[in-house]
Amino acid sequence: MGRILETIGSPADLKGLSLAQLKELASEIREELVETVAQTGGHLGPNLGVVELTLALHTVLSSPRDRIVWDVGHQAYVHKLLTGRREQFRTLRQEGGLSGFTRRSESPHDPFGAGHASTAVSAALGIALARDALGERFAVVAVVGDGALTGGMAYEGLNNAGTLGTDLVVILNDNEMSIAPNVGAIARYLTQLRLAPGARRAKEDVERLLSQIPGLGEPMLRVGGRMKEGLKHLLLPGTLFEELGFSYYGPLDGHDIPTLQHILRDGLDHGGPVLIHVVTQKGRGYRPAEEDPATFHGLGPFTPYWKAEKVEPAAAVERPKPPSYSKVFATSLIGLAHRDPRVVAITAAMPAGTGLSAFQKVFPDRCFDVGIAEQNAVTMAAGMSTAGLRPVVALYSTFLQRGYDQLIHDVCVQNLPVTFALDRAGIVGDDGPTHHGVFDLAYMRCIPNLVLMAPKDGAELQDMLATALSLEGPAAVRYPKGACPLSHGQAFDFEREPRILEVGRSELLRPGTDVAIIALGAMVGPALEAAGALEAEGIQAAVLNARFVKPLDEGRILDLARRTGRLVTVEEGVRMGGFGSAVLELLSDRQVAARVVRLGVEDRFVEHGGQESLRAQQGLSAEGIADAARRLVKVVSPAAWRKGAENAPS
Amino acid sequence: MGRILETIGSPADLKGLSLAQLKELASEIREELVETVAQTGGHLGPNLGVVELTLALHTVLSSPRDRIVWDVGHQAYVHKLLTGRREQFRTLRQEGGLSGFTRRSESPHDPFGAGHASTAVSAALGIALARDALGERFAVVAVVGDGALTGGMAYEGLNNAGTLGTDLVVILNDNEMSIAPNVGAIARYLTQLRLAPGARRAKEDVERLLSQIPGLGEPMLRVGGRMKEGLKHLLLPGTLFEELGFSYYGPLDGHDIPTLQHILRDGLDHGGPVLIHVVTQKGRGYRPAEEDPATFHGLGPFTPYWKAEKVEPAAAVERPKPPSYSKVFATSLIGLAHRDPRVVAITAAMPAGTGLSAFQKVFPDRCFDVGIAEQNAVTMAAGMSTAGLRPVVALYSTFLQRGYDQLIHDVCVQNLPVTFALDRAGIVGDDGPTHHGVFDLAYMRCIPNLVLMAPKDGAELQDMLATALSLEGPAAVRYPKGACPLSHGQAFDFEREPRILEVGRSELLRPGTDVAIIALGAMVGPALEAAGALEAEGIQAAVLNARFVKPLDEGRILDLARRTGRLVTVEEGVRMGGFGSAVLELLSDRQVAARVVRLGVEDRFVEHGGQESLRAQQGLSAEGIADAARRLVKVVSPAAWRKGAENAPS
Repeated sequence: MGRILETIGSPADLKGLSLAQLKELASEIREELVETVAQTGGHLGPNLGVVELTLALHTVLSSPRDRIVWDVGHQAYVHKLLTGRREQFRTLRQEGGLSGFTRRSESPHDPFGAGHASTAVSAALGIALARDALGERFAVVAVVGDGALTGGMAYEGLNNAGTLGTDLVVILNDNEMSIAPNVGAIARYLTQLRLAPGARRAKEDVERLLSQIPGLGEPMLRVGGRMKEGLKHLLLPGTLFEELGFSYYGPLDGHDIPTLQHILRDGLDHGGPVLIHVVTQKGRGYRPAEEDPATFHGLGPFTPYWKAEKVEPAAAVERPKPPSYSKVFATSLIGLAHRDPRVVAITAAMPAGTGLSAFQKVFPDRCFDVGIAEQNAVTMAAGMSTAGLRPVVALYSTFLQRGYDQLIHDVCVQNLPVTFALDRAGIVGDDGPTHHGVFDLAYMRCIPNLVLMAPKDGAELQDMLATALSLEGPAAVRYPKGACPLSHGQAFDFEREPRILEVGRSELLRPGTDVAIIALGAMVGPALEAAGALEAEGIQAAVLNARFVKPLDEGRILDLARRTGRLVTVEEGVRMGGFGSAVLELLSDRQVAARVVRLGVEDRFVEHGGQESLRAQQGLSAEGIADAARRLVKVVSPAAWRKGAENAPS
Repeated sequence: MGRILETIGSPADLKGLSLAQLKELASEIREELVETVAQTGGHLGPNLGVVELTLALHTVLSSPRDRIVWDVGHQAYVHKLLTGRREQFRTLRQEGGLSGFTRRSESPHDPFGAGHASTAVSAALGIALARDALGERFAVVAVVGDGALTGGMAYEGLNNAGTLGTDLVVILNDNEMSIAPNVGAIARYLTQLRLAPGARRAKEDVERLLSQIPGLGEPMLRVGGRMKEGLKHLLLPGTLFEELGFSYYGPLDGHDIPTLQHILRDGLDHGGPVLIHVVTQKGRGYRPAEEDPATFHGLGPFTPYWKAEKVEPAAAVERPKPPSYSKVFATSLIGLAHRDPRVVAITAAMPAGTGLSAFQKVFPDRCFDVGIAEQNAVTMAAGMSTAGLRPVVALYSTFLQRGYDQLIHDVCVQNLPVTFALDRAGIVGDDGPTHHGVFDLAYMRCIPNLVLMAPKDGAELQDMLATALSLEGPAAVRYPKGACPLSHGQAFDFEREPRILEVGRSELLRPGTDVAIIALGAMVGPALEAAGALEAEGIQAAVLNARFVKPLDEGRILDLARRTGRLVTVEEGVRMGGFGSAVLELLSDRQVAARVVRLGVEDRFVEHGGQESLRAQQGLSAEGIADAARRLVKVVSPAAWRKGAENAPS
C-alpha cells in the first residue's frame, strides 16, 4: 500500500485527512526525515519535534495565502515535505538541491528565508503590517524556538508587535534547548510555565471567570486596578508575554494534533498579537535522537539504527582523523587558561560547535554561554577585559555579524584586549549563503586597532591564539570549518608549546622570481601545491603565508612585488574589500607597480554545496591558483598585459 | 560666597555635605549645565534630569573603586562635573576638550565608554563577573534609560544577568522618553508601573508581609505554588523584571536624594541582580527644557532665557538657510509617498533627527518608529517588502552597524526592495568616534545585490531616493550631517521633479587631461573647488561625481585612468576597503595601470571636533584634494614616481 505522504502534493491535500490518517502521515514523515538526513546530514532533531505542529499549521492555515515564517528555518523540513518539495527532498543540502533552510526562491510557501535565529517575529510583523496597509486579509504565523528568545532581536520584535496590535500569531516552539540547552532567565521562566498545572486557558477565559464572581477579592486587599492583573497571574501563566502585549495560550502538548488545531483556530479568531506556547520534544520518534538531542540537533550522514548491525547512536558522529580546527582551538585554549588565570571563554549557544564544551568541562567557572546573544557576548567580554580578565569570544564567523556594532564600539574604540576566535570562516558547504563566513575580512579590516589573523594549519592556530592573548588590544583569529591539514600523516601535537608570533610578520615558505603567491590561512596549502605544479612547468613561484590581514607585512609584500612584478593573492573571503584589496591599497599607497590577481569569493552569495567543490568554483584550489599564476606569468610585456587583461574575463 | 561646586575635586568631597548642601549643589550644577551647554551645545535635558541621581550615586558609592557604567554616556555630564573634570567642563564637545560621552581615556571614573544605547547591562555584567573571578570586592552599577530598554541588547544583558546571579545593580532611569517619546510594549508597561500607587516595596518586604498572614488566600482559589507569585504581583510592580531574575525596587522619585540613597544602599546590601526603577524628569529645573524635552534632548548652542531679551525657547533651534540633507530627504519622501501608496518609512527612535517627523505628520499610518531597535527595523522592512510595500529605513549611518547581520541576510541575501536612507554618514563632528559614519561604505560594499549611492547635493539626494525606490532590489543612499550645498545662493527647490538615475552611471562634471578627481557625495563640491585652483596653476583636472559606490561606473573610471594615468579618489569614509579601494580593485581586475591617491579617513578612530576641521585633517577639503592632485601631477616619470612615493609619507 502506498504511503499517504506520496499523495500530498500541496497543503490542500491534507484537508480531507482524518486524525488517524494524520497520525499515520506523521509516522511516514518521521521515517522520511531519518532516511533522508541519514544520507544528507542536516538538522534531524528539530524536525522530528515539529511533525505534528507542522501538520496542525497546514491543516488550519491555507499556505501560501497565509504566511508561515519559520525562525532559523532549519526546522522546516516537514514543511518542505508538505509543500510540493517531497520529490526533491533527497537532494536536501546537496549542491543544486533543496536548501537546509527556508528560501523564498525555492517555494511560494517560504514567504521569508532564514538562517540565523530570532528574526521571525520582526519579519512576520512586517508582513502583517504590509497586509494591513494594503487592505489584504490573510493570517501571519511566526514559529520561533525557545532558543531564539535568548536573542535580543526577538524581544525587539515582540515589543513592537505587542503595541502595534496587528493580527499576528507567534508560536513558541519550546523544546527546552536551542542547539545546546538554553541559558538565561527566560529559559528558567519557560520551565516554570511548563510546570504550571493545567493552565491551558486564554486571557479571556480567565477574565470571564473573574467577572462571574461578584466583588471577588476586593475585601482582601485594596490595591485598586492592579487586582485583576494579579488574579490573572494567579490563574494564568505567561504574564511576561502578556506584559509585552501578547495574548498568551499554553503551554500545549506539541504532539497533540487536535489540541494544536483547536488553539491555533482560537488564536487566529482572537485577533491582535497572540503567543501560543507549544512544548515539543526534540528528536521525537527516533529513539537515539530522543536520548541524545544535542548530537542529533544537526549532524552529518549516519546509519539509522534499524539498518545498523548494532544500535549505536554514537556512530552518528563523524570522527575525522586529523583534528578539526575547533578541537585544536579548544585544546589550545585549555592549555593557555591553565597558565593564565585571567583567560575566560564566552560562546553564544555554540559550546559544542566551537569546541568550547571541552574547555567548559575543565573550567566550568570560566566558560560563559550567553545563549543566542552575540551582542551581549561581545560587550560582556569588553566589560570583563576592563576589569582584568582576558576573554576569548568563540563564535562562528557569520554570527559575529550580529555583534558588529559592539565589536567596533565596545571593543575596538576602547582598544580592549578581547580575543575573537572565529570558527567556520570561509566556505562552510552545506549550510549555504547564511552560514558562509566570507564577509569577516572585509567588515573587520576597516576597524582601527584590531589585529586580524588567519592560520595556515593547526599549529599556527595555537600560535595565533597565544599571540592574541599576549596583546594589549583586540585581536581576531579566523579559521575554517573542518580538519587541519597534517603533514606526512603525522599525528597532531596537542602538547606543542605555542609560539608568540611577531605581529604583522608573514612567513616566506618558498622563494620564487616569476610570480609570488600571497596566501591567507587555509589557502596556504593549495598555494604550495600550485607552486609545485608550476615548478614542473619551469615557473618559479614564491609562496608567502600572509598570517596577518592587519597589520600587513608591508615590507615583505612590497619586496615580493618589486622582485616578481606579479602577485596572486588568495583568500577564502569576498574579493570586494578583503585581504587582496589590502594588498592593492598597500601597493597604491607606496606606489609600487605590480600586476595583481586577487582570488577570492566573487560578488554573489554562495549557494550551498560541497565545501571543496564550492571553493574550486571560486578558483580557491591548487589548480585555480596555478591557473591564475600561469596567466600572469605568460603575459610578458606591460603592453600585452594591459591589452590581454582587458579582453580577459575578470 | 564661593559655590560648593568649586570645592568638589572628586566624589570623596561629597561625603561630608548635608542634605541642604547637596540640594544647593544640585542647583549650582544645573546652572553650570545650562551655561555650558548654551555655549557648547550638547545633551541638556538628560543631564538636568539626573542631577540628584548622580549625587545619590556618588555619595553612596566610592568611584572609581566602585564602577558606574552609564548607558549611552550622554547623561554623564553631572558625573563629569563631580569626578575631577569641572575645570575642563567648558571644553565639552570642543576639539581637544571633554567628550560628550563617557570615555575610559578621559578619567578612571569612566570604567566603560559608550555612545550607542543598550550596552551598559552587558558591560556591567562583564565587569561584575571579572570581579567575582578575580576575587575582588566592589559594587557595579549600570544606569540605563527607559529608551535603552527598547533595544534587544539590553534584554540579552538582563536575561544573562538574571540567571548568573552576580551582584549587580541596574538603575532604570525612566524619563518616559529616549530621544523621541518611547514606543513599544515596554514603554506602556513602565507607564503602568509609574501609575502604581505607593508600591515602593522590595520583594522581601512583600514576602515578609505575606508570611505574617497565616493561610492567606489558600481557601479562595487552589492554584498551588503560583499563589504566592500571584499575590506578589498584586502588591508589587516590576513582575517583568522579577521574571527576568532581578529583584525590583521602585518606582522611586528620582529627584529625592535621601530616598535614592536609602534604596541604593538597600539594593547593594540585597545582593544578586537588582533593578531600581527611578523616575526622573528630563530637563528638570530649566523651564524651557521641561516644557519642550525633545528639543532640549540634544541641541546646538543657545541663549539661556535669563540672558535673552525675551524668553524664547524656540531660539534654541538652529535654522540654517540652506536646508539640511535630513529635511530634503523627508520632503522628498513625502512627495514620493504621495505618488506611490506602497512607500512607508521606518525609523529607530530618530523621527526628528532623520527628518521623518515631517513624514509622520503627513502619513501617520505609514511611519513606524520601532524604538532603539535597529535589528527589528531592518528585518521588519524586509518582511514588509515581501508583502508588497516599499519600505524606507531611515537611520544614522553609525546605527546601521546594529542591524548589519539583518542587512546581509534578511535584505540582501533575499534581494528585497528595501531602501536605506543613511543620514550622518561621514564625519559628524561633536559627537566623536562612536557617531562618525565612516565605516558604512566599507562594510556595505562587500555585500552582494546592494546598490550603494551618495549624492553630491540635495537635488541628487532627491534623485537617488527616487532611483532607490524604483529598483527591485536593495539600495542605500548615504549623505552627511548638515546643510546641502546651494549654488549661487539659490533657494532649494523642494518641488523639483526627481529624476531616476541610471544605476552605475557617474557624472563627469569637468574634463581634464592631467589628473582625474573621482569624488563621492559631499566631496564633489571641494573637488570642483580644487580643480578650479589647479587650473590657475595650469593643471587640467577632470572631476567625476561618482554617484555610485556599487556598482561602479567602470567604463568612465577606466577611461579617465587611461587618459590621465593619475586618479585622486575622495570619500568621507575609511580608506581601508572604501570607495577608493573599489577603484583600485577595478583597475587591478582590468589591469589598467594608473597612479592612484585615495583620500579618506585614516585607520584611526576620529575624535570629536568641528566637522570642517576634522575633515580638513584627513585631507578632505579643497586644499587637501588640490595638494594630492598636484603631487601626483608633479611626479612625471614612472621611475621618479616610484622613487618619490616610497619616500613620501603614505
